[in-house]
Amino acid sequence: MIANYLTGLLKGDIRSLSRCISIVENESAGFEELLEKLPGANSTKIVGITGPPGAGKSTLVNELIQSLLKVGKKVAIIAVDPSSPFNMGALLGDRIRMSQHFNSPNVYIRSLASRGALGGLSPKIIEIAEVVKAAHFDYLFIETVGVGQSEVDIAGIADTSIVVLVPEAGDEIQTMKAGLMEIANIFVVNKSDRPTADTFVKNLRLLAHTKRSESWEIPVIKSIATRGVGIDAIIEAINKHQEALEQIPARKALLLTDKLYQLIQYRRMHDINKLELLNVVKEELEKGNFNLYKMVKSFVN
Amino acid sequence: MIANYLTGLLKGDIRSLSRCISIVENESAGFEELLEKLPGANSTKIVGITGPPGAGKSTLVNELIQSLLKVGKKVAIIAVDPSSPFNMGALLGDRIRMSQHFNSPNVYIRSLASRGALGGLSPKIIEIAEVVKAAHFDYLFIETVGVGQSEVDIAGIADTSIVVLVPEAGDEIQTMKAGLMEIANIFVVNKSDRPTADTFVKNLRLLAHTKRSESWEIPVIKSIATRGVGIDAIIEAINKHQEALEQIPARKALLLTDKLYQLIQYRRMHDINKLELLNVVKEELEKGNFNLYKMVKSFVN
Repeated sequence: MIANYLTGLLKGDIRSLSRCISIVENESAGFEELLEKLPGANSTKIVGITGPPGAGKSTLVNELIQSLLKVGKKVAIIAVDPSSPFNMGALLGDRIRMSQHFNSPNVYIRSLASRGALGGLSPKIIEIAEVVKAAHFDYLFIETVGVGQSEVDIAGIADTSIVVLVPEAGDEIQTMKAGLMEIANIFVVNKSDRPTADTFVKNLRLLAHTKRSESWEIPVIKSIATRGVGIDAIIEAINKHQEALEQIPARKALLLTDKLYQLIQYRRMHDINKLELLNVVKEELEKGNFNLYKMVKSFVN
Repeated sequence: MIANYLTGLLKGDIRSLSRCISIVENESAGFEELLEKLPGANSTKIVGITGPPGAGKSTLVNELIQSLLKVGKKVAIIAVDPSSPFNMGALLGDRIRMSQHFNSPNVYIRSLASRGALGGLSPKIIEIAEVVKAAHFDYLFIETVGVGQSEVDIAGIADTSIVVLVPEAGDEIQTMKAGLMEIANIFVVNKSDRPTADTFVKNLRLLAHTKRSESWEIPVIKSIATRGVGIDAIIEAINKHQEALEQIPARKALLLTDKLYQLIQYRRMHDINKLELLNVVKEELEKGNFNLYKMVKSFVN
């Protein structure tokens, strides 16, 4: 069975891809065999898109897909919203409509729900991305909501991380966006027809300039996703960033090391279910004289 | 040796406490024995203080300590700044001066540097907090910088999490502070003599009100730390929140479960050094045909 799915996957068959992702997502029988048999090398560009809710990420991704499809590219999208099950439904609805609209073998769209108690959405996305890569897509977009407590570490998954922002008061850039600033390879200022856009972009460019490295200066791109403005510039920036990455072989090894670490951690913690752990803690608390480290030891040795 | 330190620690001897923390911090010989012999029950209030850089957290903590010392309380402070080694030095300098100023057996101040490659500052702070609790402090303040990428999860360590903000443009509250909003049990708006303070506080109160639970409505407290304004109100809010926690026994079990999970993960990943992992990845990449999952397996089975 796995062999058949794998053959289909390597040919780029969409139904095989769907099946393979489900097997990995649910850790169904054979998922380890499947993951071990994936070919190593590939040329899929993995692009993470994150930013606060309401920044227009979905619309932007839709426009990017359309532009890439027009020039004959194969594009996959994984949409993740771990923080909001409600939003998830809405997102999924959008995607289904979008999917029908495209109705093309060159586009594949998948929504991922939060894994909750199973712990760790990032490792699961890394595994799924490996599956998508095997189906020879040119681009894989991974879209997440970028808030502080998000369990998805997009910078640990994507080759290129895009942070989408909307124009707001300039002085907040200094403080609250520190987390997003650290992971951005490309900034997109969406809804850039808002009156405060120019000041915002100017401040962001100044800040981005201080973060430049020898091989990459973070571009700040203005877009109006609802009108398709800025889309080509974003695609150009993605391609340029991927070229820049090729110049730094160490960067690739670092990213892989980070992924490997996340996956090892995920597997090593796989037998720990937080709900069961809670029950053990409650029992121990009732007994009295609770010692945290003794409990740790009972799960480690 | 450990037995001697432990006896001193349980008596509240500051030098024994320092020594015990160093043993745990550096995982010196006997650290496991020490952790296992800590008494379980205690009544130390663990208070996390976080917020963006420049919000005045250090000044605020200093004022809180002074007020608590005046009423005969024993107070410990752990100051953490994993993101900025430069700031760390400055912070440490402040603390040393502060420590000399107090020169009291009722206050203990410790700065923690980032563990970097050793991975995971949060589990280390949890272990150190257990040590501090054994020395019968009334309060333990853990001060961190609250940015998105911080490796310290203050809500997973503290009983009461205080988020310190400064008045800024009101509309940003909606988007960028989502992460801080989730963890706050108490909001402090410091530098509240700024002209935009009232609007900011009003908006924050509206938002906090939507997050209220049956047992707790998140208070928004105005302070001017440099002039000691609002300090008593903050202490009162901390005490009230701790009383509210006592009413929900499940909350304690949940927090302990979260700590236990973090510590199990830390111990299980203890043999993995990211730098060594990077070298293994580089070797495998040179061999060609890199398969991520095969590598994971070699570290799991």
